[in-house]
Amino acid sequence: MSIVIQAAAEQDWPAIWQIIAPVFRSGTTYAFATDISETAAHSAWLNTPVRTYVAKQSDAVVGTYYIKTNQAGPGSHVCNCGYIVDENARGQGIASLMCEHSQQQAIELGFRAMQYNLVVSTNDGAVRLWKKHGFEIVGILPAAFQHAELGFVDAYVMYKQLV
Amino acid sequence: MSIVIQAAAEQDWPAIWQIIAPVFRSGTTYAFATDISETAAHSAWLNTPVRTYVAKQSDAVVGTYYIKTNQAGPGSHVCNCGYIVDENARGQGIASLMCEHSQQQAIELGFRAMQYNLVVSTNDGAVRLWKKHGFEIVGILPAAFQHAELGFVDAYVMYKQLV
Repeated sequence: MSIVIQAAAEQDWPAIWQIIAPVFRSGTTYAFATDISETAAHSAWLNTPVRTYVAKQSDAVVGTYYIKTNQAGPGSHVCNCGYIVDENARGQGIASLMCEHSQQQAIELGFRAMQYNLVVSTNDGAVRLWKKHGFEIVGILPAAFQHAELGFVDAYVMYKQLV
Repeated sequence: MSIVIQAAAEQDWPAIWQIIAPVFRSGTTYAFATDISETAAHSAWLNTPVRTYVAKQSDAVVGTYYIKTNQAGPGSHVCNCGYIVDENARGQGIASLMCEHSQQQAIELGFRAMQYNLVVSTNDGAVRLWKKHGFEIVGILPAAFQHAELGFVDAYVMYKQLV
């Protein structure tokens, strides 16, 4: 597997949208509207963040993530990231690569910590992966996520100090 | 003390700004840029939220709060609020009144829970007050707030289920 992670370009958007749309539509892991428009998703994923990246394998986009400033002013040293891997490219360690990459980028951008605001408690794979990468569950939000299949489930706040 | 809480009108903005600006400038309790412009503050406090209210005493604005949707889609049943009382009107229970009012409004708006994303751990008065109103510390964010006087301090995630 040869994966290259690089800054997302506008021309990557159709491939990014192909990957993230089914995840948003599913309503099982991300707090985006399940019926979000492509325009709104483009703004949220590609324009609003400080940086957006794509993971490419043989020039095909197989994953994407963003880095945002999580809170303003006195909270602006903490960033937030969201990662999505193409459902056809899972199990190859691409999320791990993006997580590591994002931590390096965050440090270079001057962030001191990374916070995941809402990790769905039933998303075992993600919880396990973020723990493996040094993130801790620092908070439990009771019934904070309305899972499309399971109803109201808890969500975790996960956090890692980077410096 | 006769306090009336009502929807904020555009004409209330100058009084709101007089109250919230010193709080943002202080960098001790809120994650807004300490040098935020009045325009950006107007947008964040009055335009972005679902609702913004003012507490009035003899027609003078003595406090203000907003209700926002905290997360989109499957997280959109949880709201977030921010409350600020005029520094000359503190100790009269205005924050308590606004907190109670916000919970009623949130329920009427269809929210099921209220989350405070970043309560500065050194803001003892706020922490005590929110606990009194049924909020629990559900998370501790290590060094997530750069306090203008104390440096990096922890912040709390506080949460209350409303229904």
